Amino acid sequence: MMKYSEMSREELLALKKELDQQFAEIKAQGLSLDMSRGKPGTDQLDISMGMMDVLANHADLKCETGVDCRNYGVIDGIPEAKRLLGDMSEVDPDHIIIYGNSSLNVMFDTVARSMTHGVMGHTPWCKLDKVKFLCPVPGYDRHFKITEFFGIEMINVPMLSTGPDMDMVEKLVSEDEAVKGIWCVPKYSNPQGITYSKETVERFARLKPAAPDFRIYWDNAYSIHHLYDDNQDFLVEILGECAKAGNPDIVYKFTSTSKVSFPGSGIAAVAASKANLEDFRKYMQIQTIGHDKLNQLRHVRFFKNLEGLHAHMRKHADLIRPKFEMVIDTLDKELSGLGIGEWTKPHGGYFISFESMEGCAKSIVSKAKEAGVVMTGAGATYPYGKDPKDSNIRIAPTYPTTEELEAAAKVFVLCVKLASVEKLLAE
Amino acid sequence: MMKYSEMSREELLALKKELDQQFAEIKAQGLSLDMSRGKPGTDQLDISMGMMDVLANHADLKCETGVDCRNYGVIDGIPEAKRLLGDMSEVDPDHIIIYGNSSLNVMFDTVARSMTHGVMGHTPWCKLDKVKFLCPVPGYDRHFKITEFFGIEMINVPMLSTGPDMDMVEKLVSEDEAVKGIWCVPKYSNPQGITYSKETVERFARLKPAAPDFRIYWDNAYSIHHLYDDNQDFLVEILGECAKAGNPDIVYKFTSTSKVSFPGSGIAAVAASKANLEDFRKYMQIQTIGHDKLNQLRHVRFFKNLEGLHAHMRKHADLIRPKFEMVIDTLDKELSGLGIGEWTKPHGGYFISFESMEGCAKSIVSKAKEAGVVMTGAGATYPYGKDPKDSNIRIAPTYPTTEELEAAAKVFVLCVKLASVEKLLAE
Repeated sequence: MMKYSEMSREELLALKKELDQQFAEIKAQGLSLDMSRGKPGTDQLDISMGMMDVLANHADLKCETGVDCRNYGVIDGIPEAKRLLGDMSEVDPDHIIIYGNSSLNVMFDTVARSMTHGVMGHTPWCKLDKVKFLCPVPGYDRHFKITEFFGIEMINVPMLSTGPDMDMVEKLVSEDEAVKGIWCVPKYSNPQGITYSKETVERFARLKPAAPDFRIYWDNAYSIHHLYDDNQDFLVEILGECAKAGNPDIVYKFTSTSKVSFPGSGIAAVAASKANLEDFRKYMQIQTIGHDKLNQLRHVRFFKNLEGLHAHMRKHADLIRPKFEMVIDTLDKELSGLGIGEWTKPHGGYFISFESMEGCAKSIVSKAKEAGVVMTGAGATYPYGKDPKDSNIRIAPTYPTTEELEAAAKVFVLCVKLASVEKLLAE
Repeated sequence: MMKYSEMSREELLALKKELDQQFAEIKAQGLSLDMSRGKPGTDQLDISMGMMDVLANHADLKCETGVDCRNYGVIDGIPEAKRLLGDMSEVDPDHIIIYGNSSLNVMFDTVARSMTHGVMGHTPWCKLDKVKFLCPVPGYDRHFKITEFFGIEMINVPMLSTGPDMDMVEKLVSEDEAVKGIWCVPKYSNPQGITYSKETVERFARLKPAAPDFRIYWDNAYSIHHLYDDNQDFLVEILGECAKAGNPDIVYKFTSTSKVSFPGSGIAAVAASKANLEDFRKYMQIQTIGHDKLNQLRHVRFFKNLEGLHAHMRKHADLIRPKFEMVIDTLDKELSGLGIGEWTKPHGGYFISFESMEGCAKSIVSKAKEAGVVMTGAGATYPYGKDPKDSNIRIAPTYPTTEELEAAAKVFVLCVKLASVEKLLAE
């Protein structure tokens, strides 16, 4: 293998000719493949079909306290659902509120509430000249879109292999009162699959924010979403760390069963200090009469307990592990040693992150599209859709079938090669 | 029957003695009854149990366009759900967005969005010195709590037998740019059971607001909630009227199946002009990845179509009509001609509204509580919980069993008599 950067112009031109030929052949196949969405495959949905049966045939629809889940009442979740999502979040059920079908919706509402009503009695953000959020990059596009929607200034913080650059986080949070939050996907992060190290979590817990209403938005979306039984990442539980550090109110922890049961038909939860939950409840009791308790009951009846959740997640892992491995194998086989990209090998979550040569991501995604393979838009993993190096691409391997994925991965590596050669020739 | 107001002091004292005696006897029974909540009875919930079965046994979970309802996708509702709730709302499915389990939540979010982002490009309300809403009174407490929560000034507008006092509405809306909305429950209103007349709806449609971002919050919560087959109220469809009047964007129409299927586990919808829906979608696509499509499918599979909804509502009516009639009979029998109260005889909805002598409502509710009967708090039907005449009481007859309701109604009329006598004696 020769690094592309060490090739002569002639060698690059010869290579380009060969790659152009391959690209033309692939285009002629008229593929229509999609590696853009963190969406479970149909086979994954099938393993949850039992959920549709657990409340059927005139099942008793009372929760354990005797409340009829078919009627109004119980604003913040039935006890058994709090226990299930509490166990999943490694938090006492007393520190849990159960929400509707979307944790993203809860995060949105939390920012919205902070804008109009402030955090625990502090000035509403809409009354401030400037509100800023730290955004570890690359990160989750839907987080960034929320803060963008509310006109909150986003500051990029580089992700390291241990999590966000904590020197930078500590400095910005302690020096600037306008910094009101940080978006985190602390386990099997979107898109890199990085799990924050023990030290990172401890440093988060010990932050000394200039703003008393600064909060860590800890989106633990992939807490139990391991790919391997014997090679799992471990994330220190942050609520406990924050309490120990005398910072109990600094974090909101979000979770949901969207990629456990059915996306869009799961249940979501927030774990936080009692003072924070009080703040959430004040808003909630005006906003709604209550969330769907039958769906809460459906989840508890189906999964029963944490062990049930883990057993279920092993079934998911068995279905998606081969997909992850196949993409990574293709990248390893086709791109190793060429110096034109790096990629992550996550132990869980939903994504593989690809880092191309600078200035190539858009070109790769556009070529892939030309060849019939839809990728997540280049730049999507950065605030405002602007990847300063134009190098990050998120690969979502779960939704296509293995056959589709194999074809798509081949297209992808070809596009990486072609875009890199073109870039080098243009220099 | 002699009017209490025509009784001599001696007669009143004698009556009070007798009523005190009855009150003491009832108190001794240690009742524990609840007429406070617009909550279906258990028998009503039972008629929807089939909903839990329609998606069971490996049913096909695709919607009619082939989208797998178990997965992400389809932000604003599956087509068959839009059609079902469109039919229920008497609006074309193209003018419908399907939401989650609570139309109250949609109304809250709509006000929240108007605060932070404004209505269709107009100045966000949080940037204005003053925002006002008109509140037909008595009305729905949860509406008023939303506007109170956002610091919106509420102006009482008296309800007439035809709906809100439209002279007053027209004047306030056309003269004051700070008036941005009005809360309406146009059919079988909460709490009076009044349906707005044709003229009222037409005058709403022809409003000429000073504020271009003024909107009618048309909460059609009881659109198909008739008590009688042969004695139904008819409400003119407002979206069509507004379009005809050249005012297509002036109204948001909200509805849900909360009191059709299961409260808390229903589906909600907004009907509005396409320009308004565009505004809703802009917000929605940031706020959530989508609502629970399986629950949408569950509703469509169970109810099938508008005829199915109507057939189902007739079952509800059969269960709750006797309860309404029993309360009204008790009021008629016990209070007619005494000049100490008036009450409505609605043809649908969930409530009976009782108007006591001025200054008696709190006393009646407090006495009822003392005797073991919980009523909706006096004042709850007015903004800020302040009923200026202290006279309106909302009676919710659906949740108790008929036996409980009979006992509760007797307690109630006794408390009305006692409070009225005390009031007259104190004058």
